Amino acid sequence: MDDVFAVIMAGGSGTRFWPLSRAAWPKQFLALASNHESLLQQTVRRLAGIVPDDHILVVTSSAHAQATREQLPMLPPGNVLGEPAARNTAPCIAWAAAHVSARSPRAVMAVLPADPHIGDEPAYRDILLRSIAAAQQGGLVTIGVTPTRPETGYGYIEVGETLSPGVERVQRFVEKPDLYRAQRFMSDGSFLWNSGMFFFRADAMLQELATQLPDLAAFADGSRRLLATGQQDAEYARERYAELTSVSIDHGVMEKAADVRVVRGAFGWYDIGSWTTAYELASKDEQRNAVHGAATSLVDSEGCYVRGSGSKVIALIGVRDLVVVDTDDALLIMPRERAQDVRRVVEDLKAKHATQFV
Amino acid sequence: MDDVFAVIMAGGSGTRFWPLSRAAWPKQFLALASNHESLLQQTVRRLAGIVPDDHILVVTSSAHAQATREQLPMLPPGNVLGEPAARNTAPCIAWAAAHVSARSPRAVMAVLPADPHIGDEPAYRDILLRSIAAAQQGGLVTIGVTPTRPETGYGYIEVGETLSPGVERVQRFVEKPDLYRAQRFMSDGSFLWNSGMFFFRADAMLQELATQLPDLAAFADGSRRLLATGQQDAEYARERYAELTSVSIDHGVMEKAADVRVVRGAFGWYDIGSWTTAYELASKDEQRNAVHGAATSLVDSEGCYVRGSGSKVIALIGVRDLVVVDTDDALLIMPRERAQDVRRVVEDLKAKHATQFV
Repeated sequence: MDDVFAVIMAGGSGTRFWPLSRAAWPKQFLALASNHESLLQQTVRRLAGIVPDDHILVVTSSAHAQATREQLPMLPPGNVLGEPAARNTAPCIAWAAAHVSARSPRAVMAVLPADPHIGDEPAYRDILLRSIAAAQQGGLVTIGVTPTRPETGYGYIEVGETLSPGVERVQRFVEKPDLYRAQRFMSDGSFLWNSGMFFFRADAMLQELATQLPDLAAFADGSRRLLATGQQDAEYARERYAELTSVSIDHGVMEKAADVRVVRGAFGWYDIGSWTTAYELASKDEQRNAVHGAATSLVDSEGCYVRGSGSKVIALIGVRDLVVVDTDDALLIMPRERAQDVRRVVEDLKAKHATQFV
Repeated sequence: MDDVFAVIMAGGSGTRFWPLSRAAWPKQFLALASNHESLLQQTVRRLAGIVPDDHILVVTSSAHAQATREQLPMLPPGNVLGEPAARNTAPCIAWAAAHVSARSPRAVMAVLPADPHIGDEPAYRDILLRSIAAAQQGGLVTIGVTPTRPETGYGYIEVGETLSPGVERVQRFVEKPDLYRAQRFMSDGSFLWNSGMFFFRADAMLQELATQLPDLAAFADGSRRLLATGQQDAEYARERYAELTSVSIDHGVMEKAADVRVVRGAFGWYDIGSWTTAYELASKDEQRNAVHGAATSLVDSEGCYVRGSGSKVIALIGVRDLVVVDTDDALLIMPRERAQDVRRVVEDLKAKHATQFV
């Protein structure tokens, strides 16, 4: 399938996994669910045999472009696009569409987040192939994951009529629900988790952008013209990127587009959004403690996530459901349920000008 | 008062303040209640002008003798006695009495633990002088502290008749009470905290030992004879110490002696027995957090004791009443109320042969 490109969105800012992630070393570079591969490296490896390396683009912050190239030495360096500013996912996809379009206007783009956990890789690779095939037929395609719990941390997709075997129409996108609604979604059966993975032909996306977000379409068109004539577009992007409409592809395009389709699947998908998810994915002992990278002495302690950074011993006495992350220069302690508040520490440290720690 | 000697008992084993204290670096060497002086150094400094430096003896484990001499360079090195084995306080006092007796048989010995916290030093020095004067009259004298709370972690002294102004007879020693009894002791008015500070003439103690613990009296007598003839007693002690009766001076002598007196006082005395006490003594912010030796980011956190060891940042989110002690090679986290269980970590690490951490 040489008219398929993958676009990996790696725009993480490094706050939710503080202190392991940092502004200079965000989540996608971490081996959160493996002992040897970073989340980004796993995402690329899972494409083997489906998308050739030179058809894999990674869009990341310009500050992380060099580290991204070092993590992915198999990619041509020019395939890593460094965004001059953080403008959410729609500009990122518009820019990537320009690069794909310059090389193959009708190619299918598989747009993938850099950092999900995939528990069942064969099932995932199968659904990738089916989603690419669906996108080759036209329209905008997304993957919807069959819910396995009433999750309030994810967005949902309500599905409508079946268009072809395994492909349904997207009725609407639904924001993160409260627990009551999440439970209703579970029992209803026509709601799927929004995986944030999108598939479309480059020309279809550029056409959709021309309707929904004309400034992004114009930006992409300028970039495509430069690239098509053998020129670079880095300087061009640097001058314009910060002014582009900052909006997610979900809100800016998918929710408004006329023809949006969903391929339904189940492949052990987790959005590793916080230390809570890291705990859920980790292997645990009989007291439900998960330990990584530390010697420990755990006395009367249950349900804790303990992550060290070497030969230190970490001792817990009489605590439950704590997250403990210890690095050389920072230590974080909180109940697992407070994982969403890690950003408050990062903000507090910035306010104190303690930027060496963020 | 050159016929006064101080005997400082520094036999700590370094478990209750793990990981800051270690087997090789026990509590008395730590600056737990000060930024520059260890508990032992404070105990010696508080004697200035009352007991001359060359009359201050320190009895400690032989493993800690050298570090003790380094912490107290003003003492003659021979004044630090290194015990060949841990045998509780009665053998320690018997040995010290032999040393004092060899130099001045009728001298008063002020026997002091190495590691109490004293909040009101002028009041303490006043009661020291009064206790020494009382002991010069004969009998065994102890300091009883007026209780300020129904403390269940201390032993108590029940006082009887008044013998002279400020000196009362000890009716009995009482073990650590439960909360109900501690509250009764508080309201009764005739119960005092047992400070573990004792005052007696060397000859009075040696006579009492001859009655109550004859093996200790015989050991002390042999030591005294060697010293009186200008010989050393280190080899003598090494051969015999491990066989001596292991008993506290409270149980072995004070509770059975006929003439035991108490001097009553209030001088902000704390037995720094655990991290809980260290928290109680520390200065705190508006959320009752006490921080020492670390940069912090404390989000929605109250009543925590945080102790770092340098330039690291320690972040807490949504936790209450935790103790967090971070050193270069060990980290301890527990609720303040579990401080008595630190020894379980030390035992666990020993059982795992992780002796580098204990």
